[in-house]
Amino acid sequence: MTITKQETKALDVRIARAALSRLMEPSDMVGMALIECTGPVDALRIATGQLKPGAQTSGDVAMILDSESGASRRSGLTEAIKRWAPRSGELAPERDIATMERLGGRIWTPEDSQWPEALLDLGIAQPICLWVRGGTDFNVPAEHRSVALVGSRDSTNYGNSVTGDLAAGLVHRDICVVSGGAYGIDAQAHRAALATGGRGESPPTIAVSACGLDRYYPAGNEDLLRAIADRGMLIAEVPPGSSPTRWRFLQRNRLIAALCSVTVVVEARWRSGALNTAHHAAGLSREVAAVPGSVHSANSAGCHRLLREGSAVCVTDAAEIAELAGPIGQSLAAEPSGRPADHDGLNLQDLLLLDALPVKSAAASEKLATVAGLTHTDVLAGLGRLQLAGLAESVGGSWRRIKRH
Amino acid sequence: MTITKQETKALDVRIARAALSRLMEPSDMVGMALIECTGPVDALRIATGQLKPGAQTSGDVAMILDSESGASRRSGLTEAIKRWAPRSGELAPERDIATMERLGGRIWTPEDSQWPEALLDLGIAQPICLWVRGGTDFNVPAEHRSVALVGSRDSTNYGNSVTGDLAAGLVHRDICVVSGGAYGIDAQAHRAALATGGRGESPPTIAVSACGLDRYYPAGNEDLLRAIADRGMLIAEVPPGSSPTRWRFLQRNRLIAALCSVTVVVEARWRSGALNTAHHAAGLSREVAAVPGSVHSANSAGCHRLLREGSAVCVTDAAEIAELAGPIGQSLAAEPSGRPADHDGLNLQDLLLLDALPVKSAAASEKLATVAGLTHTDVLAGLGRLQLAGLAESVGGSWRRIKRH
Repeated sequence: MTITKQETKALDVRIARAALSRLMEPSDMVGMALIECTGPVDALRIATGQLKPGAQTSGDVAMILDSESGASRRSGLTEAIKRWAPRSGELAPERDIATMERLGGRIWTPEDSQWPEALLDLGIAQPICLWVRGGTDFNVPAEHRSVALVGSRDSTNYGNSVTGDLAAGLVHRDICVVSGGAYGIDAQAHRAALATGGRGESPPTIAVSACGLDRYYPAGNEDLLRAIADRGMLIAEVPPGSSPTRWRFLQRNRLIAALCSVTVVVEARWRSGALNTAHHAAGLSREVAAVPGSVHSANSAGCHRLLREGSAVCVTDAAEIAELAGPIGQSLAAEPSGRPADHDGLNLQDLLLLDALPVKSAAASEKLATVAGLTHTDVLAGLGRLQLAGLAESVGGSWRRIKRH
Repeated sequence: MTITKQETKALDVRIARAALSRLMEPSDMVGMALIECTGPVDALRIATGQLKPGAQTSGDVAMILDSESGASRRSGLTEAIKRWAPRSGELAPERDIATMERLGGRIWTPEDSQWPEALLDLGIAQPICLWVRGGTDFNVPAEHRSVALVGSRDSTNYGNSVTGDLAAGLVHRDICVVSGGAYGIDAQAHRAALATGGRGESPPTIAVSACGLDRYYPAGNEDLLRAIADRGMLIAEVPPGSSPTRWRFLQRNRLIAALCSVTVVVEARWRSGALNTAHHAAGLSREVAAVPGSVHSANSAGCHRLLREGSAVCVTDAAEIAELAGPIGQSLAAEPSGRPADHDGLNLQDLLLLDALPVKSAAASEKLATVAGLTHTDVLAGLGRLQLAGLAESVGGSWRRIKRH
């Protein structure tokens, strides 16, 4: 079998992206701008000092960085190359890809057809590549079929119970659950989603990791993460061997937010990582929702903060979340019907008359006119309507009320 | 002592309003328009058939009704007079006033200096008069010093506990609690307010009744309502002897909403009278707030509905409510501070460096450059800053992290 020039080029791109994902931290804006300007293969050569950037490239990179108003511009290209230098000697992209394949995983790049469209909304800050473990038939579901369930590690029984209900309800509606790999709400969401099971084409649940997928972090979740790799999907933007740092957690949160149309904060303290995910979601014009809880629970204070600030929609069940997630007009949550009341649909006159009617004794129509404040004619007409509605009956010329409920 | 002509006229107005409040149901728009056109004395004569309305008066009444787009116009003046006729024979305003005085109460009219200014926002639908029981020194506090706490009759332990905390917290802040007289949230709000006590000038709590103040309704709250009459304030717009009807309850809710700058729904089912009060408050451009609770509690479903629809602000304590109630900039709720973290205030480079520093062992600065993805120069500068901040220490030329918390 011969390898065509095109196939060689595709392979080069893949290997270059694998290497770049180790060289550069997630959302390293100078790096992202460089890749945007030169493509991954030349970007890798420039970033590792094998190729000197021309004046044109340096200028283009600076222009892109200037246009990204939201980006925290750490430095220019020259400083960035110095910054990348210490890691240049450690690159071994083929080894990383082989490691993933040994784990049953693979690498996806923006050039691949499986690349999640939702990530394009991240613009220049989209991941260099994705490292993926999970069923080979699985793709990442479309954004409107994915919901993030996030929250505290030290979740309460209430939070765990609600998370379980929500995750199961979402998977039942063929909506994929997305979360981190932490204890508490994250773990509970994955467990309930796996227990409910998916429909085959998409995974019931996706865990987005802040470290390399050869590690199970936190260690106590190893069994769960193995189960997700088996029946769901594990995703990371950092290569095998990468440790989880605070920066990578914060950047991981942007991926969770970007992959989903709705981010639901189930439980969060006043200051919580889950709020960072919510903030990313809002920045991407995704829906943010929060689950209410007891005002006495510190684990709901972050949710109430989002609600109070108007940053999140209040949601109480999976149907309401599905309504937020789905294309408008679909999956509309049914309104609880409430118990119907006797006076439903009555006009004001008949309502006054109904309230004037005695239940135990009976009253003459003239008396009813005084009590209800209506003319005698109106009372007689109203009594007819109430009688038809089964709400009044005549007893020897007097009238009394019948209770329907 | 001689009575001047002016005093006679004031007395006539007072007596006329007392009579009109029995003749007409609350918010009887034709009646309100008639009083607006002719004043209460002539309105009473016309309404009881002693004086024929001129073409001018009928025209003015019709014009007012047409201009009230929100009003449900039941009929014209001629029909209304027929409607009022059955009750005309039962009027005894002097007796009603005497009854109130015997109970230690009185009647207030819009002509009195004590008339609550907040009620003017009801426009033509403001009460004909108020029947009042309570300390003679008490006035109704200004709108921004009053908060309505409303909710279910069948409140839960959670609802009762939150209501108690909120009512006590509000009275502590010299804010008057306003509610109905029902079981559940209403009763709990009054109890906690009375137990906390006021500061003398304003009552700690006001119960707005849907029936005459000679009755204690519901009977099971008699002791509580007596205590409110004694140390707080009871208010009704219907005269002594009036029974509570559904219409009067709904109209009573508009008074609660109008008297307060904020209406807080503490617990409410999906379908609840408290939501009617919230609706009145919104219609009057008052603040509406809701207390969150368990998604499993049917008694919080109405609150969550308001939050979900964006009709209410989420509140969790008295400070947050006081912030909504007070003039802007006053009583600002303090933000829970949360536990400070080691990385607070660090720039991105130092954050990456901090995460790269080992805690147990120590690492050389060259190694740190690789792990953190920074130049060696940046690492050395950053280590200096972290050392100054008490977050890093040098151990024989290598570096390790110090945990502050």
